[in-house]
Amino acid sequence: MDVFKAIAERFSYRGPYRDEQVPRDDLRRIVEAGLLAPSGKNAQTTRFVIVDDPDLLERIGAIPSANRSLREAKALIACIVDVNPEAIYEGFAFQIEDCAAAVENMLLAVTALDYASVWVDGWLRVEGRAHAIGAMLGVPDGKVIRVLLPVGVPEGERRQPPKMPFEQRAFFNRFGA
Amino acid sequence: MDVFKAIAERFSYRGPYRDEQVPRDDLRRIVEAGLLAPSGKNAQTTRFVIVDDPDLLERIGAIPSANRSLREAKALIACIVDVNPEAIYEGFAFQIEDCAAAVENMLLAVTALDYASVWVDGWLRVEGRAHAIGAMLGVPDGKVIRVLLPVGVPEGERRQPPKMPFEQRAFFNRFGA
Repeated sequence: MDVFKAIAERFSYRGPYRDEQVPRDDLRRIVEAGLLAPSGKNAQTTRFVIVDDPDLLERIGAIPSANRSLREAKALIACIVDVNPEAIYEGFAFQIEDCAAAVENMLLAVTALDYASVWVDGWLRVEGRAHAIGAMLGVPDGKVIRVLLPVGVPEGERRQPPKMPFEQRAFFNRFGA
Repeated sequence: MDVFKAIAERFSYRGPYRDEQVPRDDLRRIVEAGLLAPSGKNAQTTRFVIVDDPDLLERIGAIPSANRSLREAKALIACIVDVNPEAIYEGFAFQIEDCAAAVENMLLAVTALDYASVWVDGWLRVEGRAHAIGAMLGVPDGKVIRVLLPVGVPEGERRQPPKMPFEQRAFFNRFGA
């Protein structure tokens, strides 16, 4: 799929999935797209656990308030960062940015392969959910699941929320011009 | 360009640019890719200033320690976030992630259009550089340039640094398995 088309068609999906498996070859291809994302000083610290074990999927989907795509996902990709990221440039760490860039690459790969997903982040940070899921996946101390991506073939509508026009967010040479 | 090819060919470029302008249509297309990136609660807070004014480019390129791609860029894209981002979900803000996802989309668009760029972030945060460039571009109080992307046709080698293999960073169902 053309890269501009993938960027335009990516959307956040929280609806039902068809009862179709996601082959490991596709999951690997999606995560390989994430591995190729840039990272500060090429440190490549983001780690990924791909979940396709039915028991694990059921346990994660059973967490109260999980959205429908998490409950019905045929696979999940957990993106893992350090709890206390090491500073690698002038006292700054870039793991949040690195993880986000990897997630965006993976969402585009998901789109190109005709699956749908949603960037689950804030939900993980409340009621100890990141820690609970991390324990199920053997995530070691000092690391934490920052983002979770459900993957499956969407049964519901592919609907993008409206976006603000270019002129409201982008300017040539002077802010607000 | 195919999305997987763009993801694989994107690289961080800090070398010389050819003396070729970047048409505004291309710059707009690149930034529109950024506008289409996901954002927490679809808040779309990232703002962009596209710099192609030669005087501004020269002043920014003259900042000491600017890398060669910043010095020779035919255009720059400044990605702007709030200094104190508003919490939009359970006390959390997502502007850093939103900005990073937009940057990654733009880097893929840059690649597809045969330009080259590099994600400049940490450099902006020292010696008041983000503030100084923000003042040149009329960035208002309360907002700050988080990322700067030089854009141009690369004259030097397109070289990707080595990436760690899948097995060192990604696992099925259990971390480290």
